[in-house]
Amino acid sequence: MVGASGTMGSYLANAFEKEHELVRADRKGRDVQVDITSTQSIEKMYQHIGAFDALVCTAGPTFVGTWKNLDDTTFRQGVEGKMMGQINLVLIGQHYIKPKGSFTLISGALTHEPQKGFANASAANAAVEGFVRAAAIELDNGIRINAVSPTVIENSPQYFPFFPGEMPVTMKQLEFGFRKSIFGANTGQIIKPY
Amino acid sequence: MVGASGTMGSYLANAFEKEHELVRADRKGRDVQVDITSTQSIEKMYQHIGAFDALVCTAGPTFVGTWKNLDDTTFRQGVEGKMMGQINLVLIGQHYIKPKGSFTLISGALTHEPQKGFANASAANAAVEGFVRAAAIELDNGIRINAVSPTVIENSPQYFPFFPGEMPVTMKQLEFGFRKSIFGANTGQIIKPY
Repeated sequence: MVGASGTMGSYLANAFEKEHELVRADRKGRDVQVDITSTQSIEKMYQHIGAFDALVCTAGPTFVGTWKNLDDTTFRQGVEGKMMGQINLVLIGQHYIKPKGSFTLISGALTHEPQKGFANASAANAAVEGFVRAAAIELDNGIRINAVSPTVIENSPQYFPFFPGEMPVTMKQLEFGFRKSIFGANTGQIIKPY
Repeated sequence: MVGASGTMGSYLANAFEKEHELVRADRKGRDVQVDITSTQSIEKMYQHIGAFDALVCTAGPTFVGTWKNLDDTTFRQGVEGKMMGQINLVLIGQHYIKPKGSFTLISGALTHEPQKGFANASAANAAVEGFVRAAAIELDNGIRINAVSPTVIENSPQYFPFFPGEMPVTMKQLEFGFRKSIFGANTGQIIKPY
């Protein structure tokens, strides 16, 4: 699980480690250190872990802030982070994952329901979703790929004011969305856990 | 019109210049030269043109090729070209466009209907579409933004074999899709001209 120390990641890691062997990857390196904006760091993480059954990513840095501060430079936060970071986790990870393994990435409702200040996330989420659908018809050996697309989540109340009218997704709903991807048989799906 | 010398651009430019003053921008510079992968080049183009009513982009370079050749390096073709190239046309162009002006970008059906060899375009198209929806709620002064999303087009028969079951979009349909964005009142829409 990449992003295992984040709000989503720590909840999901606690839930899944009761049933499965789980490796927590994040920038600080509780089990293993990874910076998803670096292909070298991703490669190193996979080399360290070796063959695995499922990659789950909940890490998705993007630029959040007023539109007038959005330019090529700030936009790169989401391009290198949530978008290419996750895409590279798949492009590199496909050489390490076991047959019939699965990739589960994180996108979000901003793809189709924008909010002010989050245009960078709307583009990065959408890119991840487009990639997931395309990768699903390319990956070999029964390897699956899906994205979980929540809206604002229960454990991040600091974001509630920016998502008027969005019913927060509960952590339990989020967990079940990831369960559907990791343990189900679907591929190429954008799973909305609500 | 950026990409005015391409298959789509030249058809559309010929159609629209009968009714409107049209500036053809492309890498070779028929009227004005632009490389959309460079923010400096985009800025220079807008400075040269000055205030304008509508930006139409039909330029969208992406990596097309076998999945096994898709990696961080090849993926950048679509990231810098069709995705950030078009996004930067808007982020920079908003400072030059007239009130009530419009941006019309190009995406494509690959966003939701992937084909083998085109994962880079699926991600770039999707990113453009996510951005368009988000930018529509951010742009000031009545400025509109839409994307036209065709499938394979009539005048590019070399792509037909890669799009089994896709009815090619006629050039007339494509033209009318762009008309809807440029001369209509919609914003934040993904216009499917079929």
